[in-house]
Amino acid sequence: MRLTPRDTKYFDLLAALAQHLVRGSSLLAELLGADRAGREKLAEEMHEVEHLADEATHSIMRRLNQTFVTPFDREDISGLASALDDCMDEMDEAADLIVLYKVEGLPDRVSDQVQVLQRCAELTADAMPRLRSMDKLADYWVEVNRLENQADKLHRKLIAQLFDDLASDPVQLMKLKEIVEVLENAADSFEKVANMVETIALKES
Amino acid sequence: MRLTPRDTKYFDLLAALAQHLVRGSSLLAELLGADRAGREKLAEEMHEVEHLADEATHSIMRRLNQTFVTPFDREDISGLASALDDCMDEMDEAADLIVLYKVEGLPDRVSDQVQVLQRCAELTADAMPRLRSMDKLADYWVEVNRLENQADKLHRKLIAQLFDDLASDPVQLMKLKEIVEVLENAADSFEKVANMVETIALKES
Amino acid sequence: MRLTPRDTKYFDLLAALAQHLVRGSSLLAELLGADRAGREKLAEEMHEVEHLADEATHSIMRRLNQTFVTPFDREDISGLASALDDCMDEMDEAADLIVLYKVEGLPDRVSDQVQVLQRCAELTADAMPRLRSMDKLADYWVEVNRLENQADKLHRKLIAQLFDDLASDPVQLMKLKEIVEVLENAADSFEKVANMVETIALKES
Repeated sequence: MRLTPRDTKYFDLLAALAQHLVRGSSLLAELLGADRAGREKLAEEMHEVEHLADEATHSIMRRLNQTFVTPFDREDISGLASALDDCMDEMDEAADLIVLYKVEGLPDRVSDQVQVLQRCAELTADAMPRLRSMDKLADYWVEVNRLENQADKLHRKLIAQLFDDLASDPVQLMKLKEIVEVLENAADSFEKVANMVETIALKES
Repeated sequence: MRLTPRDTKYFDLLAALAQHLVRGSSLLAELLGADRAGREKLAEEMHEVEHLADEATHSIMRRLNQTFVTPFDREDISGLASALDDCMDEMDEAADLIVLYKVEGLPDRVSDQVQVLQRCAELTADAMPRLRSMDKLADYWVEVNRLENQADKLHRKLIAQLFDDLASDPVQLMKLKEIVEVLENAADSFEKVANMVETIALKES
Repeated sequence: MRLTPRDTKYFDLLAALAQHLVRGSSLLAELLGADRAGREKLAEEMHEVEHLADEATHSIMRRLNQTFVTPFDREDISGLASALDDCMDEMDEAADLIVLYKVEGLPDRVSDQVQVLQRCAELTADAMPRLRSMDKLADYWVEVNRLENQADKLHRKLIAQLFDDLASDPVQLMKLKEIVEVLENAADSFEKVANMVETIALKES
């Protein structure tokens, strides 16, 4: 059905974008354990990575506007790119809030949340190059869905814990609740990426 | 103009999806009046209904990816399905928060909010089968717009009341404010569904 | 390539919509300096302007559904219209919250935020008619991006200041934080409009 050579550069571009998420999630993990000065430095680095992801997303969008034949639906590629970018934005926002709110005493479960994000980022970066051959992608989306489920349970426990522990410190409660929710949004965004990959794979099969 | 038989199964699928909203909104009403144990059980049931709505939405999306000729624009059908799914998600989230936050002393106006949602859900479920013939849909969208307006006024009064009543209990204020806002989002989502139906009806007329 | 006359009325409609944003942003500036009664009156006026913007957006959408040949991609026009409408909605929401929360003692930096919005609205309203000829649009989107950057820095300083100043008044903190965030969302929405214009200009060049 396809008579013209397809522009397969998209697979490389999406894979490169996903690599930024791996870097971002590990910066976030590092930041949790750092002192205030260390956190500021790491949030700066995070912001640079976020900028690179942004550039990568834009270059995918620009290419889409100039290419006639894409390896799969145009809107699927742009959807994937912007969903990956959302993951990055949310991790960047979490780093940012931790610094801005000068947060101390993050509960251990926040590290668990970030570990889930790291795992999601790695799985996503591994899966992107496999879009080329649509190979073994089901393992990826099943596992990310499982992780998001785990993140969701963790999130609920964390929120309940915050309300219990910080009933007498509403300002600290506000800060931690917001950070925990942004991390949960990031996990949701990784799931959205996985669901998009599933949809693409079903269409192509 | 249309030479191929159109796949009219979509009307049934959208109607079935909307029926889940009717069930969800009445579970939510029931949950408000229940004690803690009752609430947990009802929130579980709500979550099952949310899951069914999710499945229904996915099966509409899958079908769209496999059908060549749809009864109206492909993106209108997918837009409607995901807007209906949003209504469900927000009602589910409200139920969830009431349980998670172990909320006591919900103001009466919260029941009024939920009653508006019940009415919206019933009107929406009634309207979906009428998409087939584009029959008497105007009554539906006019009434849902009126109800959303009423919900909005109620919401504003509730927020003002919360800030007045709970000035000395910021943690309780945070909890109730979030619940009241999620319920308002649900009313907004029902209005979005109605506005989409209006757009479709105008295009088809 | 284009054999049919294109419907260029869209440029006028988008320009008219953007003019409502200029009016809205200056009402918002006025509202900050008013007393309680004045604020209520101005929030009413704001709401009327928001209603006009809403009507303008709907009439663009209706026209899109009836026109076969548009000056550029159908979804670019609808995207622009709804992004402009988002700017209005957020400014309206800010006005609304200031009245609803009976806010006193807004920090000076809030006025700085609103000044940035006024400048964004003027630049946007100036740029819309130039879409017709794609003339000198780069100046516009570069400047709005610069302003949004400035707004973002201001926003971060404001949030830090609120947490410092209001550590012992969590309810006031909640109110001001929400208002400041809605204003930041409005600045983001102006940037989104500018980015869309950039994308359109690149496609057309």
